[in-house]
Amino acid sequence: MTEMNFLELLKAEKENTEKYLKFYLDSLHIPGVLHDAMEYSLSAGGKRLRPFLAVVVCEMLGKPRELIMPYACALEFVHTFSLIHDDLPALDNDDLRRGKPSCHKAFREDIAILAGDALNTDAFSLLFEFGEGNLKRAGKYFSKAVGGRGMTLGQIYDCTIPENERTAEKLDFINYYKTSELFIAATAGAAAWLDADEKEVNALEEFATELGIAFQISDDILDITSTTEKLGKPVGSDAELNKMTYPALMGLDGARNAVVKRTEKAKAALMSAFKESEWMEILLQFADYVRDMAK
Amino acid sequence: MTEMNFLELLKAEKENTEKYLKFYLDSLHIPGVLHDAMEYSLSAGGKRLRPFLAVVVCEMLGKPRELIMPYACALEFVHTFSLIHDDLPALDNDDLRRGKPSCHKAFREDIAILAGDALNTDAFSLLFEFGEGNLKRAGKYFSKAVGGRGMTLGQIYDCTIPENERTAEKLDFINYYKTSELFIAATAGAAAWLDADEKEVNALEEFATELGIAFQISDDILDITSTTEKLGKPVGSDAELNKMTYPALMGLDGARNAVVKRTEKAKAALMSAFKESEWMEILLQFADYVRDMAK
Repeated sequence: MTEMNFLELLKAEKENTEKYLKFYLDSLHIPGVLHDAMEYSLSAGGKRLRPFLAVVVCEMLGKPRELIMPYACALEFVHTFSLIHDDLPALDNDDLRRGKPSCHKAFREDIAILAGDALNTDAFSLLFEFGEGNLKRAGKYFSKAVGGRGMTLGQIYDCTIPENERTAEKLDFINYYKTSELFIAATAGAAAWLDADEKEVNALEEFATELGIAFQISDDILDITSTTEKLGKPVGSDAELNKMTYPALMGLDGARNAVVKRTEKAKAALMSAFKESEWMEILLQFADYVRDMAK
Repeated sequence: MTEMNFLELLKAEKENTEKYLKFYLDSLHIPGVLHDAMEYSLSAGGKRLRPFLAVVVCEMLGKPRELIMPYACALEFVHTFSLIHDDLPALDNDDLRRGKPSCHKAFREDIAILAGDALNTDAFSLLFEFGEGNLKRAGKYFSKAVGGRGMTLGQIYDCTIPENERTAEKLDFINYYKTSELFIAATAGAAAWLDADEKEVNALEEFATELGIAFQISDDILDITSTTEKLGKPVGSDAELNKMTYPALMGLDGARNAVVKRTEKAKAALMSAFKESEWMEILLQFADYVRDMAK
């Protein structure tokens, strides 16, 4: 166990998470095309990063893993809901998601809207029906991260703040809502679910805040420096869309420095509240991964 | 208090509910256009029937009314979310809702989708942040009524079962999901939130099941027998759309008989579990109201 590696573990856990995702979805006994559309998007792949973070926090806190699985899968339900709605014609109008037809292309627009709605609501069904965690304390993190004070607000900003009116400060808060909040739910919220100390929960919140924003800065950098082959989508698409990005605002070096600063801050927050352990090491490696992905 | 009348009370409570709706929405501190779109649809009127049912159940159980208000308003949040998404171009494509531009017309389609999403999620925020009720027990009713085993499933059926393939049985289950389930959340779920006995919760579930379906049958009848002026929308629109309705399937008298049977069953269920009281009388009057609305 001392040789655990973030990327290997992430890959190894993916299969287990997907087994649980299928189990919980099937346990809800949703019939017909609604089930099929939900399953289509839930099983379309992805790294399953948010459930992974919740599992790592659970192990780090020494709690039984079964306790976190409904909560971990609820995170992936809402992440999937957000992808389905983001792809809709009225939003990003993306016909493809991870190389497959997006939900509204594979099914129909009305079905995709409703499948997203059901994944949004039934994430909470998982918490209420299969969860044995601290519902009230974690529920606050979870619903805040998803609704009008979280992910959905980030998406509104993305739709309504003109690309050329974005400053570094505006980009930070857009990305805080779009990405950090669900990272917070996946770490601090997971810890709250598992009755962790307030100090631990707060440290994880700071960790996730910094990493969420750093993650997006790295993503912007990759859009410039990577190859289409590595990225799995055309490089330079941000510039082509006249998108305001971190590198455009602060230069490549400035953006890279911001990533380093934020990932260091994330690690410091974690180390301030947790003793060294092999599972804590995984979270530190995640920070390093975010730092290095845009090197 | 012995002279309480369902319709008068419903009207009197509407203002109070709307005050709370505004209070809870503002308490979430959602900024900008997302707040505005949510508020626009939340304040667009309606009878506030679902919060009303929850309030009546609360009074009938002799519990302090403050205890039910977050739950009652959460019901109206999700009801409003469903109306916003139902009106979207990909679904019913309605430009008007209660005589005002629907959300996607007053704002924009992307904003309407996201405002609906936020109302869906933040209904749960109300439960987690302002609620002191039995979260786990009531949350099951609430999330079941809204997601892929409730309202959203009913909407899927509405979008996917061809109008001319509907039988009375199919209409019943479409209406069970579309209407009864949220009535169940508003009565049985409210009772669960307030720690009522299992027997009382189950009786309210049967009451709401029957009334939800009866309500829809009456609505179908009204579309034939009412005037455009009374109805506030063109009469005969169902026939024009070649919609399969209860009167089309079983004749006007058959449909009226079905309403009477179901409302009687609803009242019997209620009386089997609750002693007579002025608040219970209001629920019985609601059943009579549903029975008589299509007379």
